[in-house]
Amino acid sequence: MSNALVRDGVESTIAPVRVCASLEDALDGVDYVQESAPERLEIKRDLYRRIDTLAARDVVLASSTSGLPASSFTDHLANRARCLVVHPINPPHLIPLVELVPAPWTDDGVVERAAALMVRAGQAPIRLSREINGFVVNRLQGALLGEAFRLVEDGVCSVADIDRAIADGLGLRWFFMGPFETIDLNAQHGIAEYCRNLGPMYYGLAKEQADAREWGPDLVAEVERQCRQVTAAENLPARRAWRDRCLAALADVKQRVLGAQSSTV
Amino acid sequence: MSNALVRDGVESTIAPVRVCASLEDALDGVDYVQESAPERLEIKRDLYRRIDTLAARDVVLASSTSGLPASSFTDHLANRARCLVVHPINPPHLIPLVELVPAPWTDDGVVERAAALMVRAGQAPIRLSREINGFVVNRLQGALLGEAFRLVEDGVCSVADIDRAIADGLGLRWFFMGPFETIDLNAQHGIAEYCRNLGPMYYGLAKEQADAREWGPDLVAEVERQCRQVTAAENLPARRAWRDRCLAALADVKQRVLGAQSSTV
Repeated sequence: MSNALVRDGVESTIAPVRVCASLEDALDGVDYVQESAPERLEIKRDLYRRIDTLAARDVVLASSTSGLPASSFTDHLANRARCLVVHPINPPHLIPLVELVPAPWTDDGVVERAAALMVRAGQAPIRLSREINGFVVNRLQGALLGEAFRLVEDGVCSVADIDRAIADGLGLRWFFMGPFETIDLNAQHGIAEYCRNLGPMYYGLAKEQADAREWGPDLVAEVERQCRQVTAAENLPARRAWRDRCLAALADVKQRVLGAQSSTV
Repeated sequence: MSNALVRDGVESTIAPVRVCASLEDALDGVDYVQESAPERLEIKRDLYRRIDTLAARDVVLASSTSGLPASSFTDHLANRARCLVVHPINPPHLIPLVELVPAPWTDDGVVERAAALMVRAGQAPIRLSREINGFVVNRLQGALLGEAFRLVEDGVCSVADIDRAIADGLGLRWFFMGPFETIDLNAQHGIAEYCRNLGPMYYGLAKEQADAREWGPDLVAEVERQCRQVTAAENLPARRAWRDRCLAALADVKQRVLGAQSSTV
């Protein structure tokens, strides 16, 4: 990308942003609030109390929180049925996914409106039926990371080989299909046949993986040592910029590749 | 791809293949054997006994098995130190990863030679230090699938939403980085900081995920029902062909995107 293009991209992104000095000013005439305050319960509880009083009654109040359920900071509000979590994934301008997590009192129509807005903004919303620790993305990531750390701790293979197992293996299909469709296409008659054939093998592995382990200091030090061989500490910012350039280029390419292929199915 | 290109690709792939009527003929003058016999222990044990006698002493004997450790079918051989598992991922012409798994008696030099050959053939080998159920790829896949089935069984979200959580979320970074580098770049000072901040959260989730569950008939029927809404049974072969076309196009594009980006880091 040329500097002019980067500058135009930044300018067109920043153009609609308005910084407000007061909550009253920020909430004036809005349809939707995406709250991204610090992850501290007392800050959010106080902030929502004020927002709930100031914002027009039909304004959707969505939180970016990755760790707190909406029920923990909206239970005291007069209009709490319009509150939910809309959790983006970092970096949100490059990762389409957002998780919509209702509190027990969130109105279904509010979830619908938040989902529709996210689609219009080019994001890919998924809906959880209820609050659950870690939501869906971090639970899936945690399950895989738990096994990855276990394999390194048990001396089965290196950090780099596990990254390769995903980036040159499982990740190629997960990039455009996800785990269920991947196995659905891996048996002649679909996923039920796959489960019949391989379910017992996976159940055996699950029993071996059922020892929840903390990532202790020695293990973390060893993983850190191996990671620093891939990217030295002083090169982390440059590597993050490389990641974001790759994500941007791949997002663009993915649309074109899948678009071209799906038309010929 | 035009039909001519497809035909040329098929012809250039098939050209070096020679079908032999006898094991003696197949083993004559070879340096390396990739055995892909049925996954039945008695078949492999008998086959390896015959191969070990017929093949020149320095020929590497590699098995494609995904489920049997090499120790279970090579213990009785005179030259068992030249045997190992070299496990490809389906479809192997589109997924570079191969898992190299030595038996306790496999010679290190044999693993080296198999790894070097795989690299020359355009594959991406990883090395396990020892035999372990499921090797690495199916253990990582199983950990994530276990949580995916659990979320559906517990009514948290749909099959399609879990596929979206990966294909529009986690899978975008795993396509080119893998799980360790992903979190290494997600904290300012790298993976040790990430583990300090989020390790306790993941340990909490791991304890919730420690109930190994069988994929029971009702759960499998429900997952199957949802998968058939994405792809009807009669369209599975066409969808598999679509998957392979996407994988081929993305493999090509990935090389170019990462190549272009890495030169500017």
